[in-house]
Amino acid sequence: MTIDEARSAFPALERVAYLNAGTNGPLARQTVDAMTERLRRDLEEGRSSAAYFESAFEVRKRVRTKLAAIVGTDESKVALTTSTTNGCNVVVAGLGLGPDDEIVTTDGEHFGLLGALAVSPARVRIAAVCDLPPEQALNVLLAEVRPRTRLLALSQICWLSGNRFPVEELREQTGVPILVDGAQSAGAVPVDATRFDFFAFSGQKWLCGPDSTGGLVVAEPEALPIAAPSYMSQNGYDGASFTPTEGAARFDPGWAPPTIVAGLDAALDVRPEGGFERAAEMAERCRELLAERVEVITAPGESTLVSFRPEGVAADVVTSLHGRGVIVREVPGKGWIRVSCGWWTTDEDLERLVAGL
Amino acid sequence: MTIDEARSAFPALERVAYLNAGTNGPLARQTVDAMTERLRRDLEEGRSSAAYFESAFEVRKRVRTKLAAIVGTDESKVALTTSTTNGCNVVVAGLGLGPDDEIVTTDGEHFGLLGALAVSPARVRIAAVCDLPPEQALNVLLAEVRPRTRLLALSQICWLSGNRFPVEELREQTGVPILVDGAQSAGAVPVDATRFDFFAFSGQKWLCGPDSTGGLVVAEPEALPIAAPSYMSQNGYDGASFTPTEGAARFDPGWAPPTIVAGLDAALDVRPEGGFERAAEMAERCRELLAERVEVITAPGESTLVSFRPEGVAADVVTSLHGRGVIVREVPGKGWIRVSCGWWTTDEDLERLVAGL
Repeated sequence: MTIDEARSAFPALERVAYLNAGTNGPLARQTVDAMTERLRRDLEEGRSSAAYFESAFEVRKRVRTKLAAIVGTDESKVALTTSTTNGCNVVVAGLGLGPDDEIVTTDGEHFGLLGALAVSPARVRIAAVCDLPPEQALNVLLAEVRPRTRLLALSQICWLSGNRFPVEELREQTGVPILVDGAQSAGAVPVDATRFDFFAFSGQKWLCGPDSTGGLVVAEPEALPIAAPSYMSQNGYDGASFTPTEGAARFDPGWAPPTIVAGLDAALDVRPEGGFERAAEMAERCRELLAERVEVITAPGESTLVSFRPEGVAADVVTSLHGRGVIVREVPGKGWIRVSCGWWTTDEDLERLVAGL
Repeated sequence: MTIDEARSAFPALERVAYLNAGTNGPLARQTVDAMTERLRRDLEEGRSSAAYFESAFEVRKRVRTKLAAIVGTDESKVALTTSTTNGCNVVVAGLGLGPDDEIVTTDGEHFGLLGALAVSPARVRIAAVCDLPPEQALNVLLAEVRPRTRLLALSQICWLSGNRFPVEELREQTGVPILVDGAQSAGAVPVDATRFDFFAFSGQKWLCGPDSTGGLVVAEPEALPIAAPSYMSQNGYDGASFTPTEGAARFDPGWAPPTIVAGLDAALDVRPEGGFERAAEMAERCRELLAERVEVITAPGESTLVSFRPEGVAADVVTSLHGRGVIVREVPGKGWIRVSCGWWTTDEDLERLVAGL
């Protein structure tokens, strides 16, 4: 599928300059059609025949395989989660850390990860790297890692600045297990999840899936205790003990609506060849155009996000841009605006953005 | 809305004798229409405008209020969960019990509850009450309660036998906090959740909502630690600490798809006057008809489930009935078949069932 062919599947892109996939991606007609078809079928045929369950399990399996391919791992390592948040909770709760343990994170994390850390009894050490140039982050992070560090937990791409955090290097140099928040990387940039112990990501952002979809990669599923079992977690139980499902499917948080899974299945087919390259090109073009007018926060070549400091109050500028059909978001607490560039972003979208500043 | 008016909204009921709401209820046209409408809107308008979020929060609030009314409590005590399982995990993980603590449950529980107990470090004591007449269950349960019992965790209506467990009496006589699995009671029979510390229930069964919907009632939300925070859990955070959302909404496991919430909102309006009474009448009629032919397991007046022991192999009988357009399910490990009677069940449905045995 070419980029133009894929782009034509997204009605919202015809109406606005949609530059906010870091929150929720646009939806393709195929995605909504698949969901609608499944809904109509459930309406007419009910939801408890053997055919209902068989077809739902088939689509779960297909989606697991597709998600695994996108993040460069095997389907046996992938759980079908409801969100990056869900994946982070599965990992942090599963590890069962105690008050003598430490977790290293950054000051540029989303609550989807921070929430799980906040309720862990472990001590959380926060490396102040969000406002640093990307090349300075590694040393600051390494300085927080100590003998009691049991987990590194941070994002691959910072949702605020759009800069990368050095997750691969940090894992390699410390040997400490790492949980990577891939909310702004999976589907946006090439990902090799085999380099991480845990990789949590979202389906509704850069993969343009329905809401409440996502994945969690667990390198060694058998080594992580199941913190919140669902019916999907077992293939046999007796009283209060059970035999876990094979592989990472044991972490599936429950029976996802077949409607939603069918939508994600369709969405994952509307991804053009050369999408990563095009998205990177458009982000770079966005940086260049913005740099002529305002202070750009994101360093070159980092991600598909471009954050900048507008001349006016960020919230007001976001509202004003919205009125001109340009959809971006404010970065809370920073006075920045964040632009999300996808393979679907056009020069015209970026010109509309700049013209609206 | 009369029962006939409500019934006409469910196309599946015209095709088959649908007697399996204990697994998944039938879907109403209004439910699917509301979902489809929301999907079309997300397709055309995208998913990140202020209007998108405002309308999604509005429908969340409306659904929370409606669910609270159905189980007889206040909306501030209700979390919007994805399932009964999800609610059970929220409670058991939140309590943070240790290896010296004990939980009392029964031998008639679903894995949705048992899974959460299985991964708790607490010792689980299982009262063998599933095969007893309902009036004998209380004493057997009380005998398992000891000074170290920190939680009673059992269903209000047993998903296998259809009999009630004495949850109110057990709570009153022991004073021990109780988690009630309401999967087979909420929407099926009148429920007063204020009598319990925790009440977890499903939206897709007796309430005829979309998949992955449910509720959790927490009598004292501030007293239960949050085990798996989502963005919905906080209204402010700083590093790895946060201010919890007011009330039980802090336990919302994440951003439910607005499509799904809109469907549940519509489903909760397709509930006729006198529904509980009609469902009880039909279950009683079902018992009587079956008792003329087979051994009925469920005692009279217990619930809207009727379990019986067929003359042949249960799985075969279920398949044979399915071929005659009668949808029931096998009870695993018991050799029983379970019939779910709703307000929508007709004499004709029951006659088809009996004729197919």
